[in-house]
Amino acid sequence: MNRQTKTKQAILDAALYLFHLKGFHATSLRDIGQKAQINPANIAYYFKNKNGLLEFCLTSYFEDYIDVLDRNVQVLDDKGPQECLMDLVRDILHFQAKNFLASSFIYGETALDSNLNREILSTYYMKENYYFQVVYEKGFKEKLFRHVSFPISMLQLKGQLSAPIIHARYSREVLHIFPQESYYIEKYIEDTIHFLHGTLFNNEPVRKLALS
Amino acid sequence: MNRQTKTKQAILDAALYLFHLKGFHATSLRDIGQKAQINPANIAYYFKNKNGLLEFCLTSYFEDYIDVLDRNVQVLDDKGPQECLMDLVRDILHFQAKNFLASSFIYGETALDSNLNREILSTYYMKENYYFQVVYEKGFKEKLFRHVSFPISMLQLKGQLSAPIIHARYSREVLHIFPQESYYIEKYIEDTIHFLHGTLFNNEPVRKLALS
Repeated sequence: MNRQTKTKQAILDAALYLFHLKGFHATSLRDIGQKAQINPANIAYYFKNKNGLLEFCLTSYFEDYIDVLDRNVQVLDDKGPQECLMDLVRDILHFQAKNFLASSFIYGETALDSNLNREILSTYYMKENYYFQVVYEKGFKEKLFRHVSFPISMLQLKGQLSAPIIHARYSREVLHIFPQESYYIEKYIEDTIHFLHGTLFNNEPVRKLALS
Repeated sequence: MNRQTKTKQAILDAALYLFHLKGFHATSLRDIGQKAQINPANIAYYFKNKNGLLEFCLTSYFEDYIDVLDRNVQVLDDKGPQECLMDLVRDILHFQAKNFLASSFIYGETALDSNLNREILSTYYMKENYYFQVVYEKGFKEKLFRHVSFPISMLQLKGQLSAPIIHARYSREVLHIFPQESYYIEKYIEDTIHFLHGTLFNNEPVRKLALS
């Protein structure tokens, strides 16, 4: 990492930390500069203003996230829809845990229904939805998925995937589990896969064999 | 409703609407006054300041919410743990839909991990957790629930219950469903109950009959 990239990364990390802690509106460039030990003028040099910084945060997060989806859906034909969806769940939960602050900030903003970069959010959610739809459609077609409503099942899955981030504090303080620790991440992945088996997958190995 | 109660309610409604839209920090008493068409001095008379207003919002929301839980868990012995948990799911999803703005604001703040009335939130979440734990324990004891990890199952259920609120905009704009319309509420309840059957309930009617 060269010095410029390092500085940029330090700014991003400080920004995400403060957005997560205090919210976007309550955070100033001065706060971010103080946290990152960087002159606010320098932040302006890289990102113009707080909105530019936010846009960069969102875009780089979602580009990486969409890569995760894309990589998995590329091999849909080889793996089949059940394997593919299970791998998606695994990779998304790992990705979110690795990018905890950004995920947390983004889900928070989504929940608050703020006008904050509405277009960016919906653009990426449309893409995300497209990938899942491809997998579900193959699952329905091959009768490996039950006849459920796609949007309702997707909303349920979204709830499962976002819970360890959105309810992170609740998990720590009330349930006494630590959803960012790898032991719990793996356990949660396992149980989310049980959820897929229990609500979505047609677990009839004979039919599955007949198709392969 | 007398005039005082009406005024108070108008202030609360305006406050929740603005907190939800702009976030707590970005909302001023002046904004609330403007929205409710009430003099800001009047708001100060009823609630002292913005924090007092917030505390009142949270407290009255959670008192009603805890009532919903309490009413259901009171009849746990009559209904058994499976029926009781299904009724809880139904009533919670209805309650949240009825109090959409408040639910949305509270989940958003939870996701952002803000220090906003941390104590109030954790006090009520501890209570909520207590009620669920009572139901799960009876379910485990009577072998009507599978041997799952309570905190992980609870986190999953929390994800299911919060999804229609947290992902409301996503539902509308990406999935084209309207999770506040009664058709979708009922459909979502049905599928959340499928989730319980698929991941938690031991569906062995023989054993169930033997116990009753």
